[in-house]
Amino acid sequence: MAPSAQSLPTSVSDEKYANVKWEELGFGFCRTDNMYVAKCKHGESFQEGKIVPYADIQISPCSAVLNYGQGLYEGLKAYRTEDGRIVLFRPDQNALRLQSGANRLCMPYPTVDQFVSAVKQVVLANKKWIPPPGRGTLYIRPILFGSGPILGSLPVPEYTFTVFACPVGRYHKDNAGLNLKIEDKFRRAFPSGTGGVKSITNYSPVWITLAEAKAKGFSDVLFLDAATGKNVEELFASNVFIVKVEERVVPVEDLLDAEEVFCTGTAAIVTTIASVTFKEKKTEFKTGDKTLAAKLFATLTDIQMGSVEDKKGWIVELTDATKPGLKL
Amino acid sequence: MAPSAQSLPTSVSDEKYANVKWEELGFGFCRTDNMYVAKCKHGESFQEGKIVPYADIQISPCSAVLNYGQGLYEGLKAYRTEDGRIVLFRPDQNALRLQSGANRLCMPYPTVDQFVSAVKQVVLANKKWIPPPGRGTLYIRPILFGSGPILGSLPVPEYTFTVFACPVGRYHKDNAGLNLKIEDKFRRAFPSGTGGVKSITNYSPVWITLAEAKAKGFSDVLFLDAATGKNVEELFASNVFIVKVEERVVPVEDLLDAEEVFCTGTAAIVTTIASVTFKEKKTEFKTGDKTLAAKLFATLTDIQMGSVEDKKGWIVELTDATKPGLKL
Repeated sequence: MAPSAQSLPTSVSDEKYANVKWEELGFGFCRTDNMYVAKCKHGESFQEGKIVPYADIQISPCSAVLNYGQGLYEGLKAYRTEDGRIVLFRPDQNALRLQSGANRLCMPYPTVDQFVSAVKQVVLANKKWIPPPGRGTLYIRPILFGSGPILGSLPVPEYTFTVFACPVGRYHKDNAGLNLKIEDKFRRAFPSGTGGVKSITNYSPVWITLAEAKAKGFSDVLFLDAATGKNVEELFASNVFIVKVEERVVPVEDLLDAEEVFCTGTAAIVTTIASVTFKEKKTEFKTGDKTLAAKLFATLTDIQMGSVEDKKGWIVELTDATKPGLKL
Repeated sequence: MAPSAQSLPTSVSDEKYANVKWEELGFGFCRTDNMYVAKCKHGESFQEGKIVPYADIQISPCSAVLNYGQGLYEGLKAYRTEDGRIVLFRPDQNALRLQSGANRLCMPYPTVDQFVSAVKQVVLANKKWIPPPGRGTLYIRPILFGSGPILGSLPVPEYTFTVFACPVGRYHKDNAGLNLKIEDKFRRAFPSGTGGVKSITNYSPVWITLAEAKAKGFSDVLFLDAATGKNVEELFASNVFIVKVEERVVPVEDLLDAEEVFCTGTAAIVTTIASVTFKEKKTEFKTGDKTLAAKLFATLTDIQMGSVEDKKGWIVELTDATKPGLKL
């Protein structure tokens, strides 16, 4: 190690934190210091982008994303562990999902290495925004979209890949479990649509259902499949699990018969569902410390926070390339 | 009339034109001089916006449109008539469609008067970009989108309404009629989705079908309904008509039995369909000057260009408010 490196701090304990009231953190937008931007012309490949100060994006009024919804997003988190490391959880899987979505929406995409490198750079460039252990996480939002102007016909001349980040607390505020409304009118995904990828077009069309459910005091909505309107699909931003049911098509009746129900997602982590309301009838489920959801939440977050050993190779630790020899 | 106004030109004949090779105009993006921008905070109403020089839009990386596809577009045209007037065609109908879409996507919207006024201002601010009579039209693109940052939950803090314009020629280049491919895998609209409004989320998810069809030499794709996969819906950007069939559900068999087929749209105007290919089998239809499509095209464009009387009140003539007494 070079002599100059010896004087550097060797743990995050002497790092400065941003001026955030960590105990009040929700899951909302919070401006941080830096973001990553890479652009790519039609017919070319994404090259290495760069970290720039966080700022508004400049985009053509006639861009593909503003006019035709050509965009994808990802969501993952950086965790500050009890022993002072900064880690990611399976970021390669986000990269692969983005690639799958880019193929579906006719866009070029960054390689897995470019994607993971961009995420790491954004985390390191916003280090002081990573909440202290147990107080929250740094949510990382990669977006890929058609930024070039297009009016009538393909191709889109330019694409942009951007990564930014915000410190977040819990996504669902209902600590006693979620109270869901089964959406009985609007469907979300349909066969041959974009339900299998993280297209931006999957979200705003069903905001109307979330707004209506929240106005009635529900925590979230549960969608049924578009083809039959009889099978359980997912919550607005998380997957749904029913205890003692294998991965298969789940009719609403099976859901209402379940002992325990929970949902998962990057934002939701593992969250107990306390009730589901279908056609005005409310059905309640097991909640509290004895649920499988509570055990899964504890195990998953213990792995992510470094207090339980990662035997699957899911954790990616960040090293600050600008400070050789320093482990964050 | 004030003396100063008497020296103003009284027809567009002495206006300057932009430096455009009008005979080469296609339906692509072309940068013009000015655009209209209005913004609106959550919980407020759209106020009068302003004309600004055409430029990139500055938008939050965490904006609702970039991350969740909250956006709508409209498309209409300004026509330069043979007798030197500049007119619009039923712009109030575009305003009403935008309002319907805004309700569906949980956005505030401009009033009909604000919308039509914004369109007029954009046309007047880009007057020299309106092609000479018979050489094309000025395509006007209003967009409404969630421009404020949002991560986890509603509401979106800010919305933007923008209008820009580009001179355009014909949308379809196939003068002898379109050769369509019936899309047999991907569906476009589905029950309770956004197919009834002009959401940006209706477009990029089916670009993959258009790209595939164009690569095989087809002019456009024809979508079937998502619920059954058996009934005719629409082309990528226009409606479809089958001669001698009333407005009703149209099974593919009825389409293939038709004598004549054509499509309509702001961009497509009225365009003859020469053939449809379904499961590798090509069916041809009547084309040429004797088609109903040719008569409808002539009548509609004659009304729009002022050479046939408008008995329906569809034409809106522009008056330049900055030059009292001057009719454009």
